[in-house]
Amino acid sequence: MPEKMGTLTLESPAKEELQKISGLSMVVFSGDLDTVLAAFIIANGAAAMDLPVSMFFTFWGLNVLRTEGPVALKEPKTMMEKMFGWMMPKGPNKLTLSKMNMGGLGTMLMKKEMVKKNVYDLPKLIRTAQEQNVRLIACTMSMDIMGIRKEELLPGLAFGGVGTFIDVADRSRMTLFI
Amino acid sequence: MPEKMGTLTLESPAKEELQKISGLSMVVFSGDLDTVLAAFIIANGAAAMDLPVSMFFTFWGLNVLRTEGPVALKEPKTMMEKMFGWMMPKGPNKLTLSKMNMGGLGTMLMKKEMVKKNVYDLPKLIRTAQEQNVRLIACTMSMDIMGIRKEELLPGLAFGGVGTFIDVADRSRMTLFI
Amino acid sequence: MPEKMGTLTLESPAKEELQKISGLSMVVFSGDLDTVLAAFIIANGAAAMDLPVSMFFTFWGLNVLRTEGPVALKEPKTMMEKMFGWMMPKGPNKLTLSKMNMGGLGTMLMKKEMVKKNVYDLPKLIRTAQEQNVRLIACTMSMDIMGIRKEELLPGLAFGGVGTFIDVADRSRMTLFI
Repeated sequence: MPEKMGTLTLESPAKEELQKISGLSMVVFSGDLDTVLAAFIIANGAAAMDLPVSMFFTFWGLNVLRTEGPVALKEPKTMMEKMFGWMMPKGPNKLTLSKMNMGGLGTMLMKKEMVKKNVYDLPKLIRTAQEQNVRLIACTMSMDIMGIRKEELLPGLAFGGVGTFIDVADRSRMTLFI
Repeated sequence: MPEKMGTLTLESPAKEELQKISGLSMVVFSGDLDTVLAAFIIANGAAAMDLPVSMFFTFWGLNVLRTEGPVALKEPKTMMEKMFGWMMPKGPNKLTLSKMNMGGLGTMLMKKEMVKKNVYDLPKLIRTAQEQNVRLIACTMSMDIMGIRKEELLPGLAFGGVGTFIDVADRSRMTLFI
Repeated sequence: MPEKMGTLTLESPAKEELQKISGLSMVVFSGDLDTVLAAFIIANGAAAMDLPVSMFFTFWGLNVLRTEGPVALKEPKTMMEKMFGWMMPKGPNKLTLSKMNMGGLGTMLMKKEMVKKNVYDLPKLIRTAQEQNVRLIACTMSMDIMGIRKEELLPGLAFGGVGTFIDVADRSRMTLFI
């Protein structure tokens, strides 16, 4: 009998529930180069340790996911949407530092230094994240406000609203707002 | 006997403890319109999913909770406290974007676009949060430093120091610094 | 038999696993005085409640840990590394507010007000954190990019990369990016 009790799995529901809560969820709100670099370095670090990682791109963070080339839009943009599109940086190569940008000089020097010190640049960090199955989610509400369409963003993204983020974050051990 | 064992609740302490850790706690440190909008959208999203939500307003975030009208103060302010009060935005309608503010033009255009796209404005998001029982906590240490009094803030707030935040956050699954 | 069942500790693995997840981990990315003050106030608050606390200093946050005096370097710096060193604030006394700095005036007034209201200044908050065994970790990748050497930083630090942070954060209940 004691043997049998030793193999009882009565406690499994709590353990299972605990195990279901794992990994990292981030809101990427900022669109500054330095902040976004930090976000992807953390994301890739966690993914390399086999943890599930989700990144939810909202507001300025959405600009990280934009592609550079002009694309044919299914629906034309309003004047306001076009203006937002012109004023905001188009993709990872256009982001600038939040500090010491100095008209682009600081950003350029920082990028050079990163190459010299063998740190991945942002486009490579994004590719690595996708290869490591980091889930990149574009916030549909921000897309709607800023007039950014799916066809203007990277391939391979997921799309969702705040409910999607809460759902994922509630099953993560680590949550960050970046 | 197996039936009886099936109803054993031996594992409940761990499960109960796990269930006690739920919901979302945020530090709202920023007083920028875009960041605060994100905070309230996330808070309302979580509350709509029946999760307990607490927001702890500190430093610049405290300005979100200020009311616009002049109020009779129980104790007069020092010159420094008056200055802080004048220089910082008084309530949700006075906040500006962290980027692309362009002397107020960018903030105005963003607000217009949000109305057009049927996104709640900040005052409505705050009201909704209160209706959904999101707990809004004003940081008493920040109030003390900035000379902001209870009578200058929204009704229905809780008040507390950092210990209050840690206490709430330690029982939350999700924690964000915004 | 029921008595024996009442003392079964079958559920302990889940409970133990849950207890192993405790305390607070932060990424301190920002190097602004106001943000860093908030980080240390939260850290000290959690430590005072006997929770394990780790702070991971990366990017601009690394400047918080720099000492003021000139130090003899084991290896000379490159021109770029010297430039980064000159341009970034050297230690807690050189940080400025993210808003209302007004060429240093705002920062000075805020510091005065904090003294008057009996709030610890940043150097004292750092000392208190170290006395309370808050683990201060300097990000080695940021040190490498910015050319900051161990001998230029506070004594008593730990050093690590993103893996170190994930490892600690994954065993924390609360995680913040500041």
